[in-house]
Amino acid sequence: MERPTRAGPVVVTGGAGAIGSWLVRVLVGRGIEVRVIDNLSTGRREHLAEAGNARNCRLTVADLREPSTYSDLFRGASEVWHFAANTDIQKGSKDPEIDFADGTVATFRVLEAARRYDVPRVLFSSSSVVYGFPKRFPTPEDYGPLEPESLYGAAKLAGEAMISAYAHMYGIRSYLFRFANIIGPAMTHGVLYDFFEKLRRDPRRLEVLGDGRQSKSYLRTEDCVDAMLRVNERATELVNIYNLGTRDRTSVREIAEKVVAAHGGTARVEYTGGERGWAGDVPQQLLAIDKLEALGWAPRFSSSGAIDHTIAEMQRARASRT
Amino acid sequence: MERPTRAGPVVVTGGAGAIGSWLVRVLVGRGIEVRVIDNLSTGRREHLAEAGNARNCRLTVADLREPSTYSDLFRGASEVWHFAANTDIQKGSKDPEIDFADGTVATFRVLEAARRYDVPRVLFSSSSVVYGFPKRFPTPEDYGPLEPESLYGAAKLAGEAMISAYAHMYGIRSYLFRFANIIGPAMTHGVLYDFFEKLRRDPRRLEVLGDGRQSKSYLRTEDCVDAMLRVNERATELVNIYNLGTRDRTSVREIAEKVVAAHGGTARVEYTGGERGWAGDVPQQLLAIDKLEALGWAPRFSSSGAIDHTIAEMQRARASRT
Repeated sequence: MERPTRAGPVVVTGGAGAIGSWLVRVLVGRGIEVRVIDNLSTGRREHLAEAGNARNCRLTVADLREPSTYSDLFRGASEVWHFAANTDIQKGSKDPEIDFADGTVATFRVLEAARRYDVPRVLFSSSSVVYGFPKRFPTPEDYGPLEPESLYGAAKLAGEAMISAYAHMYGIRSYLFRFANIIGPAMTHGVLYDFFEKLRRDPRRLEVLGDGRQSKSYLRTEDCVDAMLRVNERATELVNIYNLGTRDRTSVREIAEKVVAAHGGTARVEYTGGERGWAGDVPQQLLAIDKLEALGWAPRFSSSGAIDHTIAEMQRARASRT
Repeated sequence: MERPTRAGPVVVTGGAGAIGSWLVRVLVGRGIEVRVIDNLSTGRREHLAEAGNARNCRLTVADLREPSTYSDLFRGASEVWHFAANTDIQKGSKDPEIDFADGTVATFRVLEAARRYDVPRVLFSSSSVVYGFPKRFPTPEDYGPLEPESLYGAAKLAGEAMISAYAHMYGIRSYLFRFANIIGPAMTHGVLYDFFEKLRRDPRRLEVLGDGRQSKSYLRTEDCVDAMLRVNERATELVNIYNLGTRDRTSVREIAEKVVAAHGGTARVEYTGGERGWAGDVPQQLLAIDKLEALGWAPRFSSSGAIDHTIAEMQRARASRT
């Protein structure tokens, strides 16, 4: 019933994004032919600069809701990494069409293209937010019930549900990666990006959404990509669900203080108050990663190490721009 | 954050279907104004004959994907029961567009209409199939991971995910009912309906899909509706997830033998073989109903009692037609 694996090019949707482009770089470095599909709404051509100059990487700018503009790229593919999504949870909370269109509908169209071209393997960037605000920390993959609190989370869980059905119906082996907060180069959103942006606009004060006690785990992009490649090599179920995170977590207050220190330590931190930063924000997140570690993998950076490393990286980038 | 409840008419999508029309009858009998929306693809006007003649019940024929044709009906509504869906899992397995359009997309449009008109409460006919083929029986509501095996199941889980997000984002109190197999009058699909149809066409033989060892619990329509009304009265979480079923289950073989006996006992039963009846079939289903029983409710009919009762009812209907 399960489709046989096959050699062939790899399709990466959202491959010009922060995580997708890192994956593309690694795959291209291994000599694999990569077909990137990205609508460049948050992804950027320059993220692919290094990989995109390679002979074995091609970017197609297309909207995933329009399969006629890209589905040919699935022909002969060995696997599809479906990473494209709205990345701005707060923006999605203002207009539910965004996560529905760019999340749920796009994922359905990608699955239909995979089915049409007999692609044997689909890998999906899901998220810790499918758990909603769980009662158990660290949260294991078999936690239930799943009650997403944002439209972004709903689109991720809808994506998981459809992929699971396609796996069982059409024998497409599938990998559902539930990400902690991923941080690293080329970010276009997220707490570190926001804090740097705010201090760039006004170095005297840093407004923090919520009371600062929100506490989550942060995983570096390289660790995230490395973990997915490991799971893809080793996990052999028809549907493979893996949390991707670290063993520790970091509060928003700690992050704010570190970012302020990196900017000279003079900015005043102002909290807007409240348990949640915004409607749909899940204030606590810590994923159980025992299943991932059982594959012989551990993150190189802890959550706080990932934050320190990323802040230093962003400082260097800032310095090189000025 | 949660919206205040309000008095007002009740909207029932799929209200001309087998379960929806029973609910409509009960609500109308209580003097509640009911606005039924149904595209009459499987629902039938005659299912509403009794309730539809009442002054306080009106049917609007509309496609849920086209909110402009029905969303006005949500104005002032106290609650929306969203029951409309593709009911033919096997048909959905041949064309993934069906469950996506009539399930996932329709549910999103209903939620948007509910948000637009500030409806404070949404009730949803989900299904045991969101569990996929679970490792634990009876299966409790907090079972995980959820790995639906059919596109129908994926659409139900996608619906749950979106409703949970709307609950948290917009304060819409929500009820997610995970149905066992519901049987009763006015069915247009399902194992009993299929067996009666097959014997009508050829009284000498009954073909059974699978090896007959599939075993599931069956709940009578009246019990299903009664349970939902009880949960709607008593359960007070923002998101309320309840299994609806019985404590026993019945094998397909037993059902086949009972149906053959009801037809004179002469038909030969022929099994197509295999653990599953069709692609996407979940061969074992038994839901934990402790949560439901804790509200002081128990089904009037056991699974085997529900089957006996329904077979007798179908025999009488058949006799009255000839």
